[in-house]
Amino acid sequence: MRFGLHLFGHHASDKPADENFRRIVEQVRVAEDIGFDLIWAGHHYMMRERQKFQVVPSMARLAADAGDMHVGTAFLLPLHHPIIVAEQFATLDAITGGRAIIGPVAGYRNIEFQSLGIPKSDRVGRLVEGVEVIKRLWTENDVTYEGEYFQFENVSITPKPVQEPRPPIWIGANSDKAVKRASKLGDAWLANPHEDEPTIARQIELAETPSGTGFHSVNPGRRDVFVAETDEEAFEIYGPYIKEFYEWYKREGQAEAMENPDALDQAFEDLVEDRFIIGSPATVTERLVKLEEEVGLDCVLMGMHRPGIPQDDVIRSIELAGNRVIPEVRDQLR
Amino acid sequence: MRFGLHLFGHHASDKPADENFRRIVEQVRVAEDIGFDLIWAGHHYMMRERQKFQVVPSMARLAADAGDMHVGTAFLLPLHHPIIVAEQFATLDAITGGRAIIGPVAGYRNIEFQSLGIPKSDRVGRLVEGVEVIKRLWTENDVTYEGEYFQFENVSITPKPVQEPRPPIWIGANSDKAVKRASKLGDAWLANPHEDEPTIARQIELAETPSGTGFHSVNPGRRDVFVAETDEEAFEIYGPYIKEFYEWYKREGQAEAMENPDALDQAFEDLVEDRFIIGSPATVTERLVKLEEEVGLDCVLMGMHRPGIPQDDVIRSIELAGNRVIPEVRDQLR
Repeated sequence: MRFGLHLFGHHASDKPADENFRRIVEQVRVAEDIGFDLIWAGHHYMMRERQKFQVVPSMARLAADAGDMHVGTAFLLPLHHPIIVAEQFATLDAITGGRAIIGPVAGYRNIEFQSLGIPKSDRVGRLVEGVEVIKRLWTENDVTYEGEYFQFENVSITPKPVQEPRPPIWIGANSDKAVKRASKLGDAWLANPHEDEPTIARQIELAETPSGTGFHSVNPGRRDVFVAETDEEAFEIYGPYIKEFYEWYKREGQAEAMENPDALDQAFEDLVEDRFIIGSPATVTERLVKLEEEVGLDCVLMGMHRPGIPQDDVIRSIELAGNRVIPEVRDQLR
Repeated sequence: MRFGLHLFGHHASDKPADENFRRIVEQVRVAEDIGFDLIWAGHHYMMRERQKFQVVPSMARLAADAGDMHVGTAFLLPLHHPIIVAEQFATLDAITGGRAIIGPVAGYRNIEFQSLGIPKSDRVGRLVEGVEVIKRLWTENDVTYEGEYFQFENVSITPKPVQEPRPPIWIGANSDKAVKRASKLGDAWLANPHEDEPTIARQIELAETPSGTGFHSVNPGRRDVFVAETDEEAFEIYGPYIKEFYEWYKREGQAEAMENPDALDQAFEDLVEDRFIIGSPATVTERLVKLEEEVGLDCVLMGMHRPGIPQDDVIRSIELAGNRVIPEVRDQLR
C-alpha cells in the first residue's frame, strides 16, 4: 500500500490566507519526514464559506518541501482548455523532478459551470476530450485534434513531462458507468472519499485493471482518515468537522453524481462505519489493511485536515500515521 | 530604483526540463541573497524550439526560495477566464505572504489564439474585461458582471488576496494607445524590453502617473541586461543569444504590436544602443541611472538568461549586478 496525505480540503475563513497556507507547508514537512509517499489536493472554484487554495500554484509551492514524495491533485478538467492544462502539469513535472500526478474530475457544482460559461451537460464530453488531448500533447509533437469541444492544428508543447511515458492520470468518478469510463480513459480510477467500502469493492471489479509500473499501476482512493491516541479522542476531535462537511457535500450536489443518490442521506453514525477511518493507531491500521485486502485500494489519500481542527491535532494525526500506522500496515501486508 | 530579475525567458530544449528548472531555482537563491527586490517571468504557450515553463506553477514554486522578494509575472489574460486567474493569483498572494504582482498582457502570437479557440481580435476587449473582473473579485463579494465576453452572477472567491487593497496590476503594452489604456486600467504600465529608451520616455509621459504605495506606484520596465567584468566580455557572452532571440521576436509577430512596426528591422548594433544594457558593472550602472533619471523607469526587470548561455555566466551576471551595480545605482540615485 502507498500512503498519501490529502491536504485540502477547505480552510477556515477566520484565519488569514497566508497563515492557513503556512500550516499546509508545515503538514507537508512533517509528512515528508515521516514516510508518506505522496501529497494530494482537491479542486474547486468560487468557494464562499471556506478558503480553498488553487491547486496548481499550491502543489507547485509545496513541491519545494515534498522531498521524494509524489505531488498530485484533483483537477476540474472540463472547466479548462486542455492545452493549457497539459502545459501546466508538464511544468509541475519538471518542478517535481518527474513526480507529478494529475487527477481529472468532471465536477458537479452548478456555480462553477454557470459562472465560467460552460454547460454542465458538456462536462463528460469535455473531460474525455481533455484527457485525450493531454495524453497526446505530453507524448507527441505537431498534434492536430478535431474534437467536438476542442480543435487545433499542429500544436507542440515544450517542455514535455519528465516522466516516461508521461505522468500518471487518475480519473475521479462516482457512478458505475463513470468508473468504467474513467479506468479506460486514464491509468486508474480514483475512488472518492464519500462512497462506502462495499460499493468501492464492487466498482473496482467493474474497472479496468491498471497496467504500467509505479504510480501508473495503483488502485488509488481518497478516504477521510484521522488518528489520535484513542478511538474516543479521534472521534471527539474529527467527528464534528466531518459531519459538517458532509452537510456541505449534500447542499452542493455531490450526492447526485453518485451511483446511489440517496447514499449520503443517512445518520452520521451510519456514514462513519465504512467510509471514514477514524481512531487509534491500532484501529486505523486494521481498517487500512482491510482497505487493501478486502476493498482493493492499494494507494490511500488520507484527508486529515478539516477547517477548524487545531493544527496541533492535525500534525499529531500525521505523526501517529507515519510512526505507528504506516509501518504496521506495510508489515501486515508484506 | 527597484531591481527585479526576469527569469524566463526560454530554455534550451537539449537539456532535461527538470535540470533547466533547477538552474532557475539556483538563480533565484543567488538573487535573494544579494539584494534583488523581485522576480518576474514572461508568459507563452505552445513554444516549439525552446522550453517555456508555465508561469503560475513556476512562480509559486520559486516563491519558496524568494525570501522577501516580490513575485510577479506577465500573464496572457485574454486566453483565460478571469475568475480562474483571480483565484490563482489570490493563492499566489497567500503563498508569498502578500508579495504577488500580476502583469496582464494582450498577447500577439497567432498560434496561441487560434489553438485555444479565441479570436485574436477579441484580445483587447478580453484584457479590459478580465482586469475589471479580477479587481472586483479580489475586493468584493457577490460580484455580478455583465460583459461582452464574461457574464456571471453573485460570485465570491476565497481566499481573497492578502495584500491591501489588492496585488499590484502592471499591464504590458506597446503602442501609444495601448500604453494609455494600460496605465488607466491597471496600477502601472509595464514597459517592454524591445522598445527603445526615447520611445519609452515619451510613452511614460502619455501614461497616467501611478498612485498608491510600494509596488503599486512604480514605473516598471523589462530590459535585457547582462553584466560581466568588461564590456567586451559581456558582449561576447550575451550578444549572440540576444541577437538570435530578436530574430524569433520578429518571426512571431511582436513587431506588429509596436508603435513603429519597423522598429526591430535594424542592424543588431543599432538595436543594442538604447535597448540592451550590456557591459561591465560601471557601464550597466551608468545605464540604469540614466534609465531612471532620463527615461523614467524606476523598477527594472532585468533579463539575464538566454537559452544556451552557460549557467555560470548567468550566475556571475546576477552576482555582479547584486554586488557592484545595485548598491552603486542606489547610491547615485539617492
